[in-house]
Amino acid sequence: MTSAKIAVIGGDGIGPEVTAEALKALTAVAGPDTFEFVDYDLGAERWQRTGEVLPDSVLGELKSVDAIVLGAVGAAPGSKAIPSGLLERGLLLKLRFAFDHAVNLRPSKLYPGVPTPLAPHIVEGRNVDFVVVREGTEGLYCGNGGSVRTGTPQELATEVSVNTAYGVERVIRDAYRRAQSRRGHLTLLHKHNVLVNAGSLWNRIFTEVGREFPDVETKYLHIDAAMIALVVDPAQFDVIVTDNLFGDIVTDLAAAVTGGIGLAASANINPTGEFPSMFEPVHGSAPDIAGKGIADPTAAISSMALLLDHLGKPELAKKIDDAVTADITARGADKFSTTEIGDRIAGRL
Amino acid sequence: MTSAKIAVIGGDGIGPEVTAEALKALTAVAGPDTFEFVDYDLGAERWQRTGEVLPDSVLGELKSVDAIVLGAVGAAPGSKAIPSGLLERGLLLKLRFAFDHAVNLRPSKLYPGVPTPLAPHIVEGRNVDFVVVREGTEGLYCGNGGSVRTGTPQELATEVSVNTAYGVERVIRDAYRRAQSRRGHLTLLHKHNVLVNAGSLWNRIFTEVGREFPDVETKYLHIDAAMIALVVDPAQFDVIVTDNLFGDIVTDLAAAVTGGIGLAASANINPTGEFPSMFEPVHGSAPDIAGKGIADPTAAISSMALLLDHLGKPELAKKIDDAVTADITARGADKFSTTEIGDRIAGRL
Ligand SMILES: CC(C)[C@H](C(=O)O)[C@@H](O)C(=O)O
Ligand SMILES: CC(C)[C@H](C(=O)O)[C@@H](O)C(=O)O
Repeated sequence: MTSAKIAVIGGDGIGPEVTAEALKALTAVAGPDTFEFVDYDLGAERWQRTGEVLPDSVLGELKSVDAIVLGAVGAAPGSKAIPSGLLERGLLLKLRFAFDHAVNLRPSKLYPGVPTPLAPHIVEGRNVDFVVVREGTEGLYCGNGGSVRTGTPQELATEVSVNTAYGVERVIRDAYRRAQSRRGHLTLLHKHNVLVNAGSLWNRIFTEVGREFPDVETKYLHIDAAMIALVVDPAQFDVIVTDNLFGDIVTDLAAAVTGGIGLAASANINPTGEFPSMFEPVHGSAPDIAGKGIADPTAAISSMALLLDHLGKPELAKKIDDAVTADITARGADKFSTTEIGDRIAGRL
Repeated sequence: MTSAKIAVIGGDGIGPEVTAEALKALTAVAGPDTFEFVDYDLGAERWQRTGEVLPDSVLGELKSVDAIVLGAVGAAPGSKAIPSGLLERGLLLKLRFAFDHAVNLRPSKLYPGVPTPLAPHIVEGRNVDFVVVREGTEGLYCGNGGSVRTGTPQELATEVSVNTAYGVERVIRDAYRRAQSRRGHLTLLHKHNVLVNAGSLWNRIFTEVGREFPDVETKYLHIDAAMIALVVDPAQFDVIVTDNLFGDIVTDLAAAVTGGIGLAASANINPTGEFPSMFEPVHGSAPDIAGKGIADPTAAISSMALLLDHLGKPELAKKIDDAVTADITARGADKFSTTEIGDRIAGRL
């Protein structure tokens, strides 16, 4: 196996802690010579020290790696030290946009024995196992907005959701393919009764591309109705496709109902392979628990399975998935430290 | 008590069925002469018959009533007979905007014995009782968007969220007042790390108005984090304030975790009293169960308590609330028909 170059951005808060465990699993499953890890010191600390968020030179270097592993980025909400959104937009979203991460993949699976906030009658005997395919390069995340008379009683602030047929089509096609190779069911989430322009575009492409996948059964749900569906009958979903903001919202709920954000992995995929894809847990930097060694690294470790899959090593991906599943089941409701969980999973590889 | 004029728009699907029970409760609590009900035939059926959604003459008439009772509006998602969003935007949202319904009030309360999709360890012994104050006249609901090269592979579709200091301030002030008269806690939901322009405006006004309410404790949550909070610890909330779209999303989840959309009432309030306010259940027209007599009218009936409160009759509002609470508790998980529930509650008034 040739060595692949992996850029590692531990980032802020619990990011570096969980990332260390993710790399431990990666090395355990693939051997010491498969991956070359290159650390990048980016995030709140670097910004406070140097005023730099993501220098162009670093962006240029990152462009040539095989994949990026990211921990978490972002200051505590309400923090006065770092302007709101600076790191999220300057680093995390910058990478997603610069490297054209059109497909933001977020699997959710409720493992046996894992505590869930849902009642037994909702989940018992049901197979809660679905994937959200979130669009990653458009929508309200474009940074297309502004304000006038800012800071005055006459302020007007706008945010623009930008949707193109090109962007919508590639993510919808990706979602159909995934549905085809899973249980053959795809749900589109939107709000086309209010957002009629974007909604018509999403609807049209969903129908058009669907003709190429006659074996995939489809369904449409308004985003508000999806909130209800996810808590009263999450087992109904196989693959969900939606836009950037709805995807952000729905994947946190999906994570919560399937055992928590500590277990939710994600991949930001560049579909053409022109740029490196990026793998990160869904959770944020969680400054409140940073440095305590109690962050759950499972999501970061599971993200490595998505990385291995993407780099053409599905057998190794499966090994990580199996080790994670076995360990989650064995852990039950017991609590372990960050390194304990990392060691337990690495020990199974 | 002088007679107040109430416009009644039963609307589509289960709308007329649940509205009949709401009026039954209103008459039972206030006597036969307190309200004059005027029926308005609006909705899918009228549009199909006449091509009219909301004629200007009707809008003009509605302007002079004391309050509007609305059932539900909208065709089945995916219906080919009625263009997507036509009724929602042409009737429901048209009324909210024309009558400047700035404050969309949506209480959520988990009554003892009511089935919830949440696990016992989340809700047992906890007081889940909060109100969402949703902005009703701005945001992504303005209809400010469009598309070019529509229907082609080069289509571009946009949706614009419009936020003004004026609009944000009045709803935030309303929310602070409500928090002050409840348990003194107010949570702002937004996504200011991504939607920095609108987010800054909401944040700024939230802080500024907060200075007038030093006794109200405040908190900020990103909308995605709020999804988690609502299923793992809903008892933490007292009053939530948020924008139009986030409010739409969060209130369906709130309804789901507190016993379902069949119980969720709402008020669309015009703060100055210049225009009539409108009272409606949160649920939609539910075409799949329309005509079967099985729709739960509780939300529509509870909305009448909000109407009575708004019309300055808090004692009568309380009677409805008490009757609804007693009946929900007595019903437990048993199923009753629409009219049975209406009769049971009216019988307690
Ligand atoms: C940190 C934030 C910008 C990000 C997002 O909104 O996409 C996060 O919530 C996520 O879901 O990856
Ligand atoms: C029917 C629809 C336009 C409406 C909304 O989005 O506001 C509904 O979902 C609601 O919450 O009242």
